[in-house]
Amino acid sequence: MTRFMDVHHGMEGITADQLREAHQADLAIEKDENVHFEQAWADPESGTVYCLSEAPSAEAVQRIHERAGHKADEIHAVPLTV
Amino acid sequence: MTRFMDVHHGMEGITADQLREAHQADLAIEKDENVHFEQAWADPESGTVYCLSEAPSAEAVQRIHERAGHKADEIHAVPLTV
Repeated sequence: MTRFMDVHHGMEGITADQLREAHQADLAIEKDENVHFEQAWADPESGTVYCLSEAPSAEAVQRIHERAGHKADEIHAVPLTV
Repeated sequence: MTRFMDVHHGMEGITADQLREAHQADLAIEKDENVHFEQAWADPESGTVYCLSEAPSAEAVQRIHERAGHKADEIHAVPLTV
């Protein structure tokens, strides 16, 4: 399992409720790909959302995000953390 | 206080030790600006580092990063979290 940070652009104006709903949509199906979405942060002004997950691969992260209706624009493995 | 996610590019090949040293350099002076750097994640392959902090402003975050020798390329307020 590897930790991933993925980034979504174009989310200008996202609300706390919308972020929560999007995260819940991921959580509801994440087990299908052995992914776990840990945290997410949103900047409604620039329309940027960051999601932190543990997953077997970037492709597994993307498959869950796509099925949940919000494909990621970037997915980076972040094996180093402090 | 607001939560910020900042991003550094061009850090290809960063090691766990270098990430830890960079984070320690921030922690050593963060109180000067009432900033707290909470976590950081690095992708040595794409050379991307993400830092999560709490701070009075993006400018305060940048002043600490600059003094510590690693100016951020992007700083986003992330008032929404889940």
